[in-house]
Amino acid sequence: MNKIILAQINTIAGNIDYNANKIKFNIEKAKSDNADLIIFPELALMGFPFGDIFMRHKSIIERQLEELNNIASLTYNITALIGFAEPTEHSGGKPFYNSVAVIQNGKIINIARKRLLPNYCEFNDYRYFEPAKETPETFELNGEKFGVIVCEDSFNDKAFFKQESIYKVDPVEELMKQHPSTVINCSCSPTRNGKEFIKNSLFSSIAKKYKINYIYVNQAGYADNLTFDGTSRIYNNKGELALRAKSFEEDYAVSVDYKGKIEPLPQGMEEKLNIKTFNINYKNDLARTYKNLTSAIKDYFNKNGFKKAVLGLSGGLDSSVCAVLLADSLGRENVWGVSMPSKITSSESKNDAKILAQNLGINFIEIPLANEIDTMKKMLSSAFSQITAEKFEKSTTIENLQARLRATLLWSISNEHKQMLPIATSDKSELYIGYATINGDMSGGYAPIADVTKTKLFALADFLNKTRETKNAIPQAIIEKPPGAELKINAKTGKSVCAEEENMPYEFLDELIWFVETQGFGFQDFINHKFYYEKNHTVDKAQKEEWIKKFFWKSHCAVYKWHILPPSVITDSHSINLAEYRQPIISKVN
Amino acid sequence: MNKIILAQINTIAGNIDYNANKIKFNIEKAKSDNADLIIFPELALMGFPFGDIFMRHKSIIERQLEELNNIASLTYNITALIGFAEPTEHSGGKPFYNSVAVIQNGKIINIARKRLLPNYCEFNDYRYFEPAKETPETFELNGEKFGVIVCEDSFNDKAFFKQESIYKVDPVEELMKQHPSTVINCSCSPTRNGKEFIKNSLFSSIAKKYKINYIYVNQAGYADNLTFDGTSRIYNNKGELALRAKSFEEDYAVSVDYKGKIEPLPQGMEEKLNIKTFNINYKNDLARTYKNLTSAIKDYFNKNGFKKAVLGLSGGLDSSVCAVLLADSLGRENVWGVSMPSKITSSESKNDAKILAQNLGINFIEIPLANEIDTMKKMLSSAFSQITAEKFEKSTTIENLQARLRATLLWSISNEHKQMLPIATSDKSELYIGYATINGDMSGGYAPIADVTKTKLFALADFLNKTRETKNAIPQAIIEKPPGAELKINAKTGKSVCAEEENMPYEFLDELIWFVETQGFGFQDFINHKFYYEKNHTVDKAQKEEWIKKFFWKSHCAVYKWHILPPSVITDSHSINLAEYRQPIISKVN
Repeated sequence: MNKIILAQINTIAGNIDYNANKIKFNIEKAKSDNADLIIFPELALMGFPFGDIFMRHKSIIERQLEELNNIASLTYNITALIGFAEPTEHSGGKPFYNSVAVIQNGKIINIARKRLLPNYCEFNDYRYFEPAKETPETFELNGEKFGVIVCEDSFNDKAFFKQESIYKVDPVEELMKQHPSTVINCSCSPTRNGKEFIKNSLFSSIAKKYKINYIYVNQAGYADNLTFDGTSRIYNNKGELALRAKSFEEDYAVSVDYKGKIEPLPQGMEEKLNIKTFNINYKNDLARTYKNLTSAIKDYFNKNGFKKAVLGLSGGLDSSVCAVLLADSLGRENVWGVSMPSKITSSESKNDAKILAQNLGINFIEIPLANEIDTMKKMLSSAFSQITAEKFEKSTTIENLQARLRATLLWSISNEHKQMLPIATSDKSELYIGYATINGDMSGGYAPIADVTKTKLFALADFLNKTRETKNAIPQAIIEKPPGAELKINAKTGKSVCAEEENMPYEFLDELIWFVETQGFGFQDFINHKFYYEKNHTVDKAQKEEWIKKFFWKSHCAVYKWHILPPSVITDSHSINLAEYRQPIISKVN
Repeated sequence: MNKIILAQINTIAGNIDYNANKIKFNIEKAKSDNADLIIFPELALMGFPFGDIFMRHKSIIERQLEELNNIASLTYNITALIGFAEPTEHSGGKPFYNSVAVIQNGKIINIARKRLLPNYCEFNDYRYFEPAKETPETFELNGEKFGVIVCEDSFNDKAFFKQESIYKVDPVEELMKQHPSTVINCSCSPTRNGKEFIKNSLFSSIAKKYKINYIYVNQAGYADNLTFDGTSRIYNNKGELALRAKSFEEDYAVSVDYKGKIEPLPQGMEEKLNIKTFNINYKNDLARTYKNLTSAIKDYFNKNGFKKAVLGLSGGLDSSVCAVLLADSLGRENVWGVSMPSKITSSESKNDAKILAQNLGINFIEIPLANEIDTMKKMLSSAFSQITAEKFEKSTTIENLQARLRATLLWSISNEHKQMLPIATSDKSELYIGYATINGDMSGGYAPIADVTKTKLFALADFLNKTRETKNAIPQAIIEKPPGAELKINAKTGKSVCAEEENMPYEFLDELIWFVETQGFGFQDFINHKFYYEKNHTVDKAQKEEWIKKFFWKSHCAVYKWHILPPSVITDSHSINLAEYRQPIISKVN
């Protein structure tokens, strides 16, 4: 029986030295552990995601092949599987294969090449790679026969998916003609809601169906809007989970006799999520979402050389959740919360922001905005005779001005500190309809919650208050009050205008987003649709139509803002993030 | 002999009603002109570029097929060629073909499907389309035999390109087995420097080689960082240019007996450009660049419902060239130039900005910044005991603060006017090394020169001064003085620090960019490289190495800024624009 290591590493695209060193370190460790086989993720040596970099910088490919040879020369008394971008030898077609080298006794004895090349959502395999025409040969190790496939190659099991596929062959089925006893899947697979349930059922069913051991090795870590959740694992030939590596971090998992440690998953992550209809019950996805958002922050800061974050604390939900996530990711001593009240800011909001900062133990500063706004107003008034003080006071200009001056202060504060990034606190629901200010709340070096809708944020806030070691860090008042930017006063009530007054109920808005993203719904589909919100609220027909119209118009105008969003992290199955879904600025979708 | 219309239209992606109406209008006109055949560009009914929209919104495809039928029902006594996204019938593979319908007497009699699917730079065909396996059948019209190909299908002529291709077949060669007398190429081909020379030589050589008439119909207009330059044309069967439609705008070009009007090209556009070595002689590309930049502004504003632009006028090169381009695109009455001098701004710069505005006849406002900066400084100082006035005065913070307050004023001014966009004036050279301020000069609703390097901008300024109707609109002092942001004072000279002092000579910088983009050069390649700049300047080895190092480090840190750039337009063969080259934020390329 073979001792097998699942080397779940975190790579940097194009940084061959870094990736190679990591691979070598793990191989040396495995050798000293007397392991027989060590498996790295898909494209481990190149690093992923790599954009177009090796198409332009051919030297990266050369460095990669050099290092593959260096690694091979170390690989005695152990077999190593290394993912890399392999130049094709023939002319015509794409320049590379997406390959896994099987290295034994200093030599590459076998190469497994990816056959199914995903080219949707965040995947662009066919931009770089030629699909392999044949299933690779199996290799033997201590009397066991192993077959190797690459990521997507395992995702075309007809019995499992029961629907038409974009691919013609099932590489696993083809591979089984050679009768391997174990199938190894090298992957780079980003986290999404509901994905763990599919991976678990699919891999288990394949192991059971073919009576094989199934080994899955996935990358860990964050890069360019994607988090790779690790959770490499082994199913035995009955389809039972026999080993599972850590989630959302690097790991070195040891299998002996196809048994090993089963690390826990974030709570609820293995459950099947309701992805057929919209509802606001996110409970099975909150622990994963939290893990995703925090590990993304940690890795983004780390990989870019930043240590500290500064954000505006308005006493509202978005900035409060961001503050918790940052404190948990970077350490509370590395987070600066800045309260920047204007005349419109209520004393409650000011107070809630302060209490939140105290609860979290982060640094707290208060800078009142009043003078600043007056100075700007004077400057603008002097420039435009037609801008009267009264008109100006009620305009969008003054609303945006507050948000922009706040962001200017945050960027100035980050300028004054080393390795500090300002944070964009906008959430997905508001970004979707453009209810976010350019150079204001949507400006920053990173946007932690840009892919989380408001109803999910409410659930997340509640989850954080209940499950973090320090309970109830977010004051209950912040969760209970109606969300609003506090940038303008309702003349009738004398209170600041809340967001749902200006837009529509968040439950309604989030369902609109959900059906557009998952079903491509258009205006007419929604008119005939029974909303979740309507279960507990009476909405007359005209009101419903107005909200739907407003949604389509506002989201149409907001697309430009999606194009200038700071880096963020994709978390749900569908995203506002252009790395997942490419929405042109100039187009009409409804 | 057939009378043929080349319908060079400007489409909107996904807006099937809009595109269909445009197609119908042109067909009706062609019918009233007694034309026999009318040809539309590739994907004319869908509109291009469409991102992922029809993958999510299936209703767009349905609408498109409905309208294709409606169009067919109009098509009597004329043959029409309409590009559209055609659902594939078989299972497996991509869901669509990139097709051209041949419509005659109310029926689709033939469909030509694209075989070669580009998937590099701005092209993503394989993300959506299945490559056709076979060359389409020719069709007959009044005794003539026509073959139809789609764009890239014409770009694999082995005799012409003489280099290894990523494609295995040459669809034109295959098509010739059916002996058509005319080949029609329906395209959506964006402008680039040097591309017209290649298109002209290639198409002409194909016509000559096969002794066929060659008809090329291209889209016109701008969308999502790309300008389609039109210039549809016909070569006769001797390879001679027989007709050419307008450049950079819609046209309806009439061919009788393969003869028609030959519209002029922007000056120098048909010349072969030097693309083998770097130099700063841009003369053959300035007229095209000007046309590209101005038609992009015009179409971006028009398609997004904006009419007016506001920009800061610093008295420097970038904002001056932007002002000219905006005045020429939108009309001088629709442009607002705002001078926002701070203490550091020289009286010369202030004066130059004013003269420029007067020369152009645009609206001009002056808002001195002084108070504003003092107020911000006080606010920040009160927040941080460690920020002393003296330290702050010399910090990057105060430099950035000036740029950010200026952008805040511009956004406020745009808020106060309807349909007005603020303009980001950053150029490519400075963006490449991050010498642009987030929420400052790189903030705006559109960035007209984000893809133009500084040395090319100098040449363009000179070109504008010489060729525009009103000569010398840009004061010579602006072109002659060393560029600089005027955000900081050199303590020794008492003058504001110029950009080349802080960075490196622009000639040197632009050559670094050029070799990275075209040859993928790394650090060591440059150390051994003889720079154009070195021809007229002595640069010692240590200085050269320092500049190269600085370049790689600064451009590495600047990538984040490229990801949040406002919409712009790609103009050269290689671009900083992510629509052309995808540079991940987290990666290492050297």
